[in-house]
Amino acid sequence: MIKKISGFPEYLPQDQMIFSYVIRKLQLLFEQESFIPMDTAAVELIDTLLSKGNDHEIYGLYRLNGEEKKNLALRFDLTVPLARYVAQNYGQLIFPYRRYHIAPVWRGERAQSGRYRQFYQCDIDIIGKQNLEEEYDAEILSIGCKTLNALGLNDFVVKFSSRDILIPLMILCGFNEDIVFDAIKILDKSTKVSQDQIINDLKLLNCSFNLEAIKYILFYNKNIENSPNGKDQIYDVFNNLSQILEFNSKLIEGYNKLYNIIHKVELLGISKSQLFFDLSLARGLSYYSGIIFEIVSNSFKNLGSICAGGRYDNLVSSFHTKEKFPGVGMSIGISRLIPEMINKQMIDKVSINDVIIIGFENHLEENKEINSIINEDNLLVSYHSKIAQIIRDCGLKVQHYWKRSNLKKQLEYCNKIGVKIVIIARNDEKIKNIVFVKNMITGEQKELALEELYEYLKNIL
Amino acid sequence: MIKKISGFPEYLPQDQMIFSYVIRKLQLLFEQESFIPMDTAAVELIDTLLSKGNDHEIYGLYRLNGEEKKNLALRFDLTVPLARYVAQNYGQLIFPYRRYHIAPVWRGERAQSGRYRQFYQCDIDIIGKQNLEEEYDAEILSIGCKTLNALGLNDFVVKFSSRDILIPLMILCGFNEDIVFDAIKILDKSTKVSQDQIINDLKLLNCSFNLEAIKYILFYNKNIENSPNGKDQIYDVFNNLSQILEFNSKLIEGYNKLYNIIHKVELLGISKSQLFFDLSLARGLSYYSGIIFEIVSNSFKNLGSICAGGRYDNLVSSFHTKEKFPGVGMSIGISRLIPEMINKQMIDKVSINDVIIIGFENHLEENKEINSIINEDNLLVSYHSKIAQIIRDCGLKVQHYWKRSNLKKQLEYCNKIGVKIVIIARNDEKIKNIVFVKNMITGEQKELALEELYEYLKNIL
Repeated sequence: MIKKISGFPEYLPQDQMIFSYVIRKLQLLFEQESFIPMDTAAVELIDTLLSKGNDHEIYGLYRLNGEEKKNLALRFDLTVPLARYVAQNYGQLIFPYRRYHIAPVWRGERAQSGRYRQFYQCDIDIIGKQNLEEEYDAEILSIGCKTLNALGLNDFVVKFSSRDILIPLMILCGFNEDIVFDAIKILDKSTKVSQDQIINDLKLLNCSFNLEAIKYILFYNKNIENSPNGKDQIYDVFNNLSQILEFNSKLIEGYNKLYNIIHKVELLGISKSQLFFDLSLARGLSYYSGIIFEIVSNSFKNLGSICAGGRYDNLVSSFHTKEKFPGVGMSIGISRLIPEMINKQMIDKVSINDVIIIGFENHLEENKEINSIINEDNLLVSYHSKIAQIIRDCGLKVQHYWKRSNLKKQLEYCNKIGVKIVIIARNDEKIKNIVFVKNMITGEQKELALEELYEYLKNIL
Repeated sequence: MIKKISGFPEYLPQDQMIFSYVIRKLQLLFEQESFIPMDTAAVELIDTLLSKGNDHEIYGLYRLNGEEKKNLALRFDLTVPLARYVAQNYGQLIFPYRRYHIAPVWRGERAQSGRYRQFYQCDIDIIGKQNLEEEYDAEILSIGCKTLNALGLNDFVVKFSSRDILIPLMILCGFNEDIVFDAIKILDKSTKVSQDQIINDLKLLNCSFNLEAIKYILFYNKNIENSPNGKDQIYDVFNNLSQILEFNSKLIEGYNKLYNIIHKVELLGISKSQLFFDLSLARGLSYYSGIIFEIVSNSFKNLGSICAGGRYDNLVSSFHTKEKFPGVGMSIGISRLIPEMINKQMIDKVSINDVIIIGFENHLEENKEINSIINEDNLLVSYHSKIAQIIRDCGLKVQHYWKRSNLKKQLEYCNKIGVKIVIIARNDEKIKNIVFVKNMITGEQKELALEELYEYLKNIL
């Protein structure tokens, strides 16, 4: 018996159908917003993957039979491949370049931690050349929200902030440029540790900081129920902060930018009641340079953010330094989200089976000659083939069932696979040029002439 | 600048759209025939992959940071994962289990040979429990043909044979069971080396064999133009062979089986003129046990077989020995086929862009106040958002274009991306509640009230 390999999830057919169905739905949604599919190789040069400097638990490749140089490894995300692809092909791309990419990535996580070693990422990004208007930021965020709505996840909140605000604000609070990123990392833990702990940790950075401002940043959004939300919340928070801090032009610039983007998100149809300005949001990834956001579903709080993204102005330049290719994108964590949605039965069972044709009888038990059985069976194959074509012409999925057994067993199979319509066509039916139709949803049974089948199926489904 | 990694092909957007489009088309075709999607992990245990005994140029995995045991590797095909999956999950599968699997596989081929190291396989298989009726063999072959037709490849021929015939026939010719597989391997080269060479190679096996029969096997199908084809050709060939060889019951059994299957392929709608009985066809893979077939396209002779498959009764039993899970399947070589089809422009350019909305002007060059620009732009964002929703309601793909530039440059972008309809909505249009519509295919231009847009788009596309 084969062992399961931990960390490499696989589905049984019924769940796989749902997973594949959701992926196709996402593809169509992204294509409706004019994103182009991307499909890079699973393999990158190790140097490319390591260029972002971190330990990503990378899986390297070696040939079982061969002494080839070990310079290849599996991608650990879809962002590095995007940056590498744009840097490699920028001369042949049309900008803004809009692409989606839904594909597996690999990380050599320890299996004990319960993490996946292979999982899907689902990313959309828009990459500009030289500059990229802030409406694209608003568009990406709004598509994130609309996509979750389309998946039936309506009870989410968007937490947003901006690096353009966070960095000048923290510097104004007293953390100079050398330690501002350390301070932001501490802030980023605010959903996991207590506010007191955060203030203590900030104190360990050994600089004098504006405690009142930090406390405001940490606490204002605890009372989120009564907050005005959306762009009005940004205005409100800055109004309050202005009474504690003296703003500089950088901070005001960051404020204006984020205010305008969120205003546009609202204009693109996202309800302001779902938009929360959260200054303690930092997002670990170092490449973000403008707006950052995370979407949390109230139905799936255990999952943390199910969608996240932001603006990155310098990602591609790690591979191509001559020109600027600013981008904005987001990622949906489908490998963890879809199984949870399946568990909660939020997605209807997907039936791959519309119609099945049964009716081959086991003549070997009778006293018939082998040649007459073959002839009879061949005529029935022909009849079933004709029926199948009628079903296809209706745009329905069809399955042949060629097994010889009694009708009861055949219907048991039909029940198990969850088919909608069973068509029974045995020799007797064939001779009379009729079929028996059994609607497995309503239980209705009917005898039809073959010519009536098309009309019947067209009307019923 | 990043190096391309040879052997790992990637497409530019226009070709990627076609590749993705063809894959989706194949998925829908297979689902219409009631095949369930499969998606196993890319990674298997090395022991699993090596269980078939051959050197498959396997890529093993190791962790860049870690001393974990090296027991994982990338799959080299989709057949071993299928057998492993069925052996692992047979208790929860419903048989006959019909699945399709379109996904990349990896082989550490030397790059010099021009072979891909990552390529897509596209497989469909039907796995039974205990037994699997021969109609399933016929169905798989017919779906292979129908799939190629649906891709616009109509000029193909199917070469078929059967292990149930080839093995007893070669034994009757004088190659005993010890060397019959060696003899078949030599026969398999008949499309690559001369007939004389084959006969010489067979002689090196050091046994006396029926030269007349072997010559007939090698030569009868050279005159394929005048042959009767299909099941009649099987009858014909056996009629001729019966004058050279004394048949035994095994051979006659094999003949009857193949004759019946091919008869059913014809009954399922495949033209007999495309079905060629080719006794020199052997197919390298050792796991085939019944019918084997290869489909060759006359448009793409250079590709060899573009679709191939057969019956394998014992594949799953290498992982699970208690029960029998006979199967039949086929594979389409899409990674080589689709690029060739793109080159020959056999697939229409796929447009991901139906409609684009343009019209943001560069007000910074004017003498306007920044706040009034922002307000004007926001009103236009709102107007464009409204227009986009009308387009979506028509079921069309929509792209926002937020870049500020003059109309000429904006139209240049529309031209480059190949969009069908351009909607121009500037401030002037917004104030009058109208849009300019430019049909990029006919060149027609029109001014429409916003309320007329839905009707217009519904009629035109």
